[in-house]
Amino acid sequence: MSRALGIKALLFDVFGTVVDWRGSVIREAAAFGRLYGIDADWQAFADAWRGKYGPFMDKVRSAALPWTNLDGLHRLALEELLAEFGIEGVSDSAKAELNLAWHRLDPWPDAPAGLARLKARFIIAAMSNGNVALMTNLARYAGLPWDCILGAELARAYKPDPRTYLTGVQLLGLQPAEAMMVAAHPGDLQAAAALGLRTALVPRPLERGRAAAPEPIATESFDVVAADFRDLAAQLGG
Amino acid sequence: MSRALGIKALLFDVFGTVVDWRGSVIREAAAFGRLYGIDADWQAFADAWRGKYGPFMDKVRSAALPWTNLDGLHRLALEELLAEFGIEGVSDSAKAELNLAWHRLDPWPDAPAGLARLKARFIIAAMSNGNVALMTNLARYAGLPWDCILGAELARAYKPDPRTYLTGVQLLGLQPAEAMMVAAHPGDLQAAAALGLRTALVPRPLERGRAAAPEPIATESFDVVAADFRDLAAQLGG
Repeated sequence: MSRALGIKALLFDVFGTVVDWRGSVIREAAAFGRLYGIDADWQAFADAWRGKYGPFMDKVRSAALPWTNLDGLHRLALEELLAEFGIEGVSDSAKAELNLAWHRLDPWPDAPAGLARLKARFIIAAMSNGNVALMTNLARYAGLPWDCILGAELARAYKPDPRTYLTGVQLLGLQPAEAMMVAAHPGDLQAAAALGLRTALVPRPLERGRAAAPEPIATESFDVVAADFRDLAAQLGG
Repeated sequence: MSRALGIKALLFDVFGTVVDWRGSVIREAAAFGRLYGIDADWQAFADAWRGKYGPFMDKVRSAALPWTNLDGLHRLALEELLAEFGIEGVSDSAKAELNLAWHRLDPWPDAPAGLARLKARFIIAAMSNGNVALMTNLARYAGLPWDCILGAELARAYKPDPRTYLTGVQLLGLQPAEAMMVAAHPGDLQAAAALGLRTALVPRPLERGRAAAPEPIATESFDVVAADFRDLAAQLGG
């Protein structure tokens, strides 16, 4: 399959595809609550924080905000979030520390070993809306053996902006068809496919927790559909 | 030492500091010669190719050339070089393959294990004039476990331009004093120190071969002077 497709690099969405942002942010927020004696519904807090992700990126996309990296957007969202949850009196340093929750996300269980296996055959790179510092710290925390970190900050544009994908492909010195985008989210893959990249869907039905029913995904439009990264490696001949 | 200095990341010059460009390019050029039945002094060829490195970057610095990454500059230099050595009739694809010699450079013997040891304690990043694709392929070839690849291409400016170092520090979300530049070349370190970065000199006396006497280096102006990367790890408490 990989030989036929001529793929040289795999570009990975990270939040939800490689790491379990929700379970990890719930854990980090609850630890923050215990440390400062604050009681709240931390599951709702994590979901509300992630809920502000799209709207804040939209502010950059529409130029209502100048370019701001994801650490910066998470921090702006956190200010709103604390107010909405009625959490007051948090110091700037405590907010800064809580904002680093996004640098400490657990990988899905198959991810580290699956990436290591894929790396033996392909360049593997983060292609996330997360900024370089966030992705670097996250890779160290979660054991993600990226060859390099690409993504939104290097293009100063958030996915699904074509510049995000194309800047990454160009930095690798590749043609779009030599790169495969790997994601749990069809929209990410459709944006990449429109530019000529290959696509691999790896559904992560637990991304939004066990209580949330995953949205059904029409899988026929992707080059590969894999159960996890080990299966992806097997299907790509790695 | 590292605790006292407050260092979070080590930024590495690569050509000469991490890898033996000269011995490797001689080997690659000689292999090219054998493949195409071309006889030349491949040591002189490698040295002349590297000799064009500074002048071609100067063309970008002076805006005589628009931004061109190092793969592009190596290729422009190669055209001159082949003419100067009287080597004719080389196909474009053979030139492109020879240009990739710079993606296949052997590490100094201590480098892979030394970097792995340093990585346990610090973020380690390439801070080279080499472009992202070159550095990515080189890391895979030589076993260099970078956390991320920074450097000239992300700043569109060649060291010792301050933008190269400062863009890297900013992408890591750090203050300059939280980063240490590691290089075999005093000029690289002096440029970094002028911006507030810490500095570690790792002399590589064999960079220009056994026949060339290494230039004497005044070592007193650097935060650390280490014999190799294992020694650097030991001195930084890793």
